[in-house]
Amino acid sequence: MTTPKFGFSLLDVSGGARRGKITTAHGDVDTPAFMPVGTAATVKAMTSQAVRDTGAQIILGNAYHLMLRPGAETIAALGGLHRFMNWPGPILTDSGGFQIWSLNALREVDAEGVTFRSHLDGSQHLLTPERAVAIQDMLEADIVMVLDECTNHPATHEEAEDSLKLTLDWARRCYDAFPGRPGHGLFGIVQGGMYEDLREEAARALIGVGFHGYAIGGLSVGEDCVTMLAMLDAAIRPLPEDQPRYLMGVGRPADVLEAVARGIDMFDCVLPTRSGRTGKAFTSRGEVNLRNARHGEDPRPLDEGCVCPACRDHSRAYLHHLTRSGEILGAVLLTWHNLRFYQDMMADIREAVATDTYSNFAAAFIQEMEKGDIPER
Amino acid sequence: MTTPKFGFSLLDVSGGARRGKITTAHGDVDTPAFMPVGTAATVKAMTSQAVRDTGAQIILGNAYHLMLRPGAETIAALGGLHRFMNWPGPILTDSGGFQIWSLNALREVDAEGVTFRSHLDGSQHLLTPERAVAIQDMLEADIVMVLDECTNHPATHEEAEDSLKLTLDWARRCYDAFPGRPGHGLFGIVQGGMYEDLREEAARALIGVGFHGYAIGGLSVGEDCVTMLAMLDAAIRPLPEDQPRYLMGVGRPADVLEAVARGIDMFDCVLPTRSGRTGKAFTSRGEVNLRNARHGEDPRPLDEGCVCPACRDHSRAYLHHLTRSGEILGAVLLTWHNLRFYQDMMADIREAVATDTYSNFAAAFIQEMEKGDIPER
Repeated sequence: MTTPKFGFSLLDVSGGARRGKITTAHGDVDTPAFMPVGTAATVKAMTSQAVRDTGAQIILGNAYHLMLRPGAETIAALGGLHRFMNWPGPILTDSGGFQIWSLNALREVDAEGVTFRSHLDGSQHLLTPERAVAIQDMLEADIVMVLDECTNHPATHEEAEDSLKLTLDWARRCYDAFPGRPGHGLFGIVQGGMYEDLREEAARALIGVGFHGYAIGGLSVGEDCVTMLAMLDAAIRPLPEDQPRYLMGVGRPADVLEAVARGIDMFDCVLPTRSGRTGKAFTSRGEVNLRNARHGEDPRPLDEGCVCPACRDHSRAYLHHLTRSGEILGAVLLTWHNLRFYQDMMADIREAVATDTYSNFAAAFIQEMEKGDIPER
Repeated sequence: MTTPKFGFSLLDVSGGARRGKITTAHGDVDTPAFMPVGTAATVKAMTSQAVRDTGAQIILGNAYHLMLRPGAETIAALGGLHRFMNWPGPILTDSGGFQIWSLNALREVDAEGVTFRSHLDGSQHLLTPERAVAIQDMLEADIVMVLDECTNHPATHEEAEDSLKLTLDWARRCYDAFPGRPGHGLFGIVQGGMYEDLREEAARALIGVGFHGYAIGGLSVGEDCVTMLAMLDAAIRPLPEDQPRYLMGVGRPADVLEAVARGIDMFDCVLPTRSGRTGKAFTSRGEVNLRNARHGEDPRPLDEGCVCPACRDHSRAYLHHLTRSGEILGAVLLTWHNLRFYQDMMADIREAVATDTYSNFAAAFIQEMEKGDIPER
């Protein structure tokens, strides 16, 4: 069997929303897709089989975390990230740019790359565009992300422009360094701060280089919702129809629905996993905090329509008990539920695009969520 | 279908070792059996399905923890402990005596019962023999344990005798209070400190009352191994052949093998679960600490012959990485492995008794464990 070429097929549209399929060395991904975050070679609290059982087809790994522990060379010697974490499907790895920006007060950026201290042991590291690509190649990531600089927020137009210039220079260097193995793709990242002209310029410049897909980064960093959507529109406008578009680090269910309507194909976000570890659940009726005393004697399932183990096997009262008791099983079950909720939502989104009913679907979905949780018994 | 009577069938013996079957309202238990500890209505870090997948047929719950949180009445209103934690099989509940003894500096024991402060919120509670039975009945435990006083160690003969007197008085009161639902059994607990005469006296007194089974408590509390085995022998000597015998809170694999040889049928211990949360694994080649740097690049499975997800899907290097990174999945996978190791050991023990080869089996098992871990690569 030969490895398929990396590619994207656009299958249906419904308004601005798109349904498609990404082909990679490790299998296909139906889009719009949500990628669970597997920072340190584990989707926190989940076995790889459980992640598959939620319906996830692709997960995200973090080059930053993995280069520091256990080390990209170690994972390569052990047969790559897929084998290391027993995830046979596609993996996208973040380049490390965002983590260095968010986790490290002590970082120095120059034209060569970024010098930073490990958040684990304080050791000093230099990450260049070339090294970022080499690390992700050692991990055998199906989708490699360029190294970018996440523009500070707020930033003046001049600051954002300078930052973008660096990001575009690094993107070209990543492109040159990318080995281009069959079935593996390299995505550019549109930056440009909160300036529409820079966002559009960034997208056009990246298209000029020619990546396998385009990500939009540096959003959901504290800006208001109107600004975020304006940046999203500006970035998307020039993007080619026949390549995948990935909105990085977003978001809540309503954000995902909104972004799909604007033509986004891929998402990742820590919310479903992080929330699951703090007693919070996403449901068809909005967010539910299982720590709340109202659930203490409630025999009903968390979300009636859901078939995950948390909803199928247990009551809200039990999930409340686990959460209040700090039991690991509470984190396991709520993470499982939240990931399943996101995957079910993505499957419903794809179905709605296929039947050209996306706009009605999204409105009804949001309306249901806005009802709030089922009444207390 | 009518609920079966609680009972025990002795099927085979091999030297002092026994193979049998316990019948309960929620199913049968093949003995010798190891009961995973599910303190707070969860076997820590495991879904109930995962616990079943390890081969466990019965689990242990703690009346002490459950009476304090979420409360026995709450669990009863939610349909009992089996339904609450989604464990359809048999459950044995500890009465709370041991937990009050080990978790509470501020406790007062008198003839009526024990007054203690909750380790959670400091609230004051009185646990009497009658209340201990009522709580376990509300939980719908298949096997109810009498309330006992765990004798301090060390204790003088007089202290141990006084303590035993109280334990035997409470045992009679538990017997009188036990509702005797079909398929549910009540076990007496042999105490007596580190005095053979008291252990034997305790066993005879309990037999005089007539319980469904007999537990041996107050061992593995700091005494040496020779003393523990002497107490075990003294306690077992008078026990009837046709009723199950349960050694509480024991132990390491070698302890289990030794106790089976002396005629014990049931075990519980936090070791496999607690060790799993701190990076330690039980294997056919002894105990392995996954935090050790020697495992950092080792592609081999933890225990070659094991079919648990930790061994089947992952390398030692991955388990090392998870453990060092403090990832929940490390606790999940190692707990799973350890419980599977114990259940596989119990299945092998039963097979050895059935074929009357127990003595050879146990010697070979211990010899293999004493080899220590496989050589470093």
